[in-house]
Amino acid sequence: MKPAKQKKLGEIARIIEGKLSGDAACMIVGAARLDEAQVNEITFVASSQFLKKWEQSKASAFVVYADFPDTNRNVIRVAQPMQAFYKAAMLFSAEHRSLKPGVHPTAIVGEDTQIGQNVSIAPLAFIGNECRLGNNIRIYSGVVIADGVTIGDNSIIYQNVSIREDCRIGSNVIIHCGVVIGSDGFGFENVAGVYKKIPQLGNVVIEDDVEIGANCTIDRAVVGSTRIGKGTKLDNLIQVGHNVVIGENTVIAAQTGIAGSTKIGNAVIMGGQVGITGHIEIGDHVILGAQCGVTKSVPPKVMLSGYPARNHARAKREEAVIRKLPELHKAVKDMQKRIEKLFG
Amino acid sequence: MKPAKQKKLGEIARIIEGKLSGDAACMIVGAARLDEAQVNEITFVASSQFLKKWEQSKASAFVVYADFPDTNRNVIRVAQPMQAFYKAAMLFSAEHRSLKPGVHPTAIVGEDTQIGQNVSIAPLAFIGNECRLGNNIRIYSGVVIADGVTIGDNSIIYQNVSIREDCRIGSNVIIHCGVVIGSDGFGFENVAGVYKKIPQLGNVVIEDDVEIGANCTIDRAVVGSTRIGKGTKLDNLIQVGHNVVIGENTVIAAQTGIAGSTKIGNAVIMGGQVGITGHIEIGDHVILGAQCGVTKSVPPKVMLSGYPARNHARAKREEAVIRKLPELHKAVKDMQKRIEKLFG
Amino acid sequence: MKPAKQKKLGEIARIIEGKLSGDAACMIVGAARLDEAQVNEITFVASSQFLKKWEQSKASAFVVYADFPDTNRNVIRVAQPMQAFYKAAMLFSAEHRSLKPGVHPTAIVGEDTQIGQNVSIAPLAFIGNECRLGNNIRIYSGVVIADGVTIGDNSIIYQNVSIREDCRIGSNVIIHCGVVIGSDGFGFENVAGVYKKIPQLGNVVIEDDVEIGANCTIDRAVVGSTRIGKGTKLDNLIQVGHNVVIGENTVIAAQTGIAGSTKIGNAVIMGGQVGITGHIEIGDHVILGAQCGVTKSVPPKVMLSGYPARNHARAKREEAVIRKLPELHKAVKDMQKRIEKLFG
Repeated sequence: MKPAKQKKLGEIARIIEGKLSGDAACMIVGAARLDEAQVNEITFVASSQFLKKWEQSKASAFVVYADFPDTNRNVIRVAQPMQAFYKAAMLFSAEHRSLKPGVHPTAIVGEDTQIGQNVSIAPLAFIGNECRLGNNIRIYSGVVIADGVTIGDNSIIYQNVSIREDCRIGSNVIIHCGVVIGSDGFGFENVAGVYKKIPQLGNVVIEDDVEIGANCTIDRAVVGSTRIGKGTKLDNLIQVGHNVVIGENTVIAAQTGIAGSTKIGNAVIMGGQVGITGHIEIGDHVILGAQCGVTKSVPPKVMLSGYPARNHARAKREEAVIRKLPELHKAVKDMQKRIEKLFG
Repeated sequence: MKPAKQKKLGEIARIIEGKLSGDAACMIVGAARLDEAQVNEITFVASSQFLKKWEQSKASAFVVYADFPDTNRNVIRVAQPMQAFYKAAMLFSAEHRSLKPGVHPTAIVGEDTQIGQNVSIAPLAFIGNECRLGNNIRIYSGVVIADGVTIGDNSIIYQNVSIREDCRIGSNVIIHCGVVIGSDGFGFENVAGVYKKIPQLGNVVIEDDVEIGANCTIDRAVVGSTRIGKGTKLDNLIQVGHNVVIGENTVIAAQTGIAGSTKIGNAVIMGGQVGITGHIEIGDHVILGAQCGVTKSVPPKVMLSGYPARNHARAKREEAVIRKLPELHKAVKDMQKRIEKLFG
Repeated sequence: MKPAKQKKLGEIARIIEGKLSGDAACMIVGAARLDEAQVNEITFVASSQFLKKWEQSKASAFVVYADFPDTNRNVIRVAQPMQAFYKAAMLFSAEHRSLKPGVHPTAIVGEDTQIGQNVSIAPLAFIGNECRLGNNIRIYSGVVIADGVTIGDNSIIYQNVSIREDCRIGSNVIIHCGVVIGSDGFGFENVAGVYKKIPQLGNVVIEDDVEIGANCTIDRAVVGSTRIGKGTKLDNLIQVGHNVVIGENTVIAAQTGIAGSTKIGNAVIMGGQVGITGHIEIGDHVILGAQCGVTKSVPPKVMLSGYPARNHARAKREEAVIRKLPELHKAVKDMQKRIEKLFG
């Protein structure tokens, strides 16, 4: 094992453009959260509410906010401590140490495939015929990219991803391990009790700046495109059915499923394990609570929860009465008896 | 990039066995849905209810029903427009352009493995020892097939699928990317608070004409077989526990989970994200609504929904009252006051 | 195809250390459950409650409990029939017939990676730089292990697993096909409606004796570690968010999701499709019913169910009234009429 990466604190201060007060020669070997950081590690203090925790921290250096109190400990003052800390922490990150530009000799690249500048294609990766790859792309081992796929600049395709034929991936896209893009949509015709396959002939279009979490499945369209809009972020294990269209800057938490042909707006926020039926529309800026089941179209800017999904404030009022149902039931029974007596 | 595929309209009409009225020399380069089709693309009009939409379509040709009104535009009259259209659309599909019959030199095939006629084994695929593969099979890159697996004629195993030892895959089966077949079932014995593994020694049997969606997981049996019956179709990200038996011509939507040893009948229809507990039976022709939770056996031909799953019509009546609970609660409180006054 | 494995009954009795009564030369070719076993197969009878089923069994031999009644059939008496049967059944299991110790020539192993004794690295597996692997490890085809990963003795990594950089896997760990360990957590900062990625710089630590089911996703920590404690067992398709910490000897059924930074105790039992929100704590010995949605911290030793999750006994009482709501609603309406009349 090589020795861990190490950097002098003075150098870190320069890189994150902060004002160091303390020992510039202090050697830093890692980055951690305030309550987990050890000696020779750097951490951060985002605001004065963490000052008490800070006193107990074992860290050797702290990225802090501009008007942090004077101290004998090593601090680097910056305008935005969290962002600056992440910049520092990346100096100790191990990613793509072994992935070098170029096509590894054990990778397969098909015919008529164009590859841009500074592209890394890892060992045992497969790229089919007639693909077009931009610049600065990283494709990890175990990735399989079928014929006719295009990928834009700076995109990263992690280990064991499968991308089926003719799908289009934009620029600055990140696709995490095990994702499947462009598998057949779930389309069958019931002919006298036997399901006949409807060919799934479209593709998937992933626009720029999208991130797709591990083991998600995005089905290809029947005809046309399943589409995920610019800047949208998907967590892990999410299902996107054929011909779904998702807008821009929408975030979807893990294990949510969206059935075929549904249209999701821009800036939508979904919790985890949400289910959305097919052929409906979810408006812009909608918020869907975790585990809710959406069965019909939703206008913009509302918050829904529960099953079937309904106005969140109303759902909470209904839930509050459900919590009292055993007592309510007893109260009704009691009243019935009294009234029976009255009328009896 | 090679030029896109193109076909003359007259040739398309011959292939789909329709009656062309219009320009047989018109060049078609793609297929799309009525509202998405562009110039030089073909689309279809399934019935007269789409006639208004049809007027606005930019498509250059239309597959239409037999008694479609007379028109100057290019139409191909057929008995079943959707099916004929899909046949036409497949002419423009890119699938398996680069997958050629034979075993690619970078694929691994183990000892004592038999391979039929016209089988394609793609680059970087792995097949273990003592497997038996029929004719006309396609195995894509990144697939790993362990020892002793059998696969019937005409089956397709897509990218990065894993099939563990001794599983049996029928004929005309389609297994989409990332599927896992034959992983160990979830079986442990609690010995004084520590879970000891119960060996999972059975296999998985996938009968003919089954389709399994991307990233599904089908566990091997403890002993005996986990079985998916002929003609059954699974959407993506579905979990099938050990020793589950699913009947024939059943369809299951995405992200549903079936716990161990449960038996599902024939012609069952399940929505997405359904959960079914272990060791129960679901009868033939049952319909399970999306997200429902089935906790006990279900007789044939009923429709269930909700949690815990119950008769759908009844569940809807209960839901209707839940929607009114805040008002009902208030009404009861009001009555209580009046009755208190009466008796007070 | 080679002939199936076969063993004489006398030899089986010796291996499972039981007392054979019957034909030691009887040839056994497989193991199966009581109601599925055929001639020349061995099965087991766990207790006297299965004696009726036993009479009808076609099996040629039976692993039975110590005081099993006298019989002319072939029986092996043991203290623990199920465990002894599994030991016998493993004699007919096909696993890792073709996986031999050593690094297959088509596998890739990076620089500065240390590999212990008796390690099998299958064809087309990839291991990065600076990894450290213990003894007796099995790594199957299609596995991709990034730089700086450590794996303890006797662990098994099944087909098409992806392990990202710097993750730490303990000893006696089993990771099933398609699992993703160490993918980026779902962390973004909303800057004027656009989501900026927060680098995910930590790792995942899997402690000893853990088993992780097929296609699970375990995200790496923002900084620090996502951790799964010793002896904990995960079923398939489970999502574990960044910085989640799961205790020891906890079992989690399929398709459950745990959001970021949540802490799960020891000896917790979760049903399938459970959803747990982020930044909460679940106490030791908690039981969570299938499909429940946990929205706040849970003290030790309670059983919760429903959405939102609440005390299980209470939830059942509430559910019981929900089942009666249509009638309750009618009763209230009737009373209102009578009271109206009274006061009217």
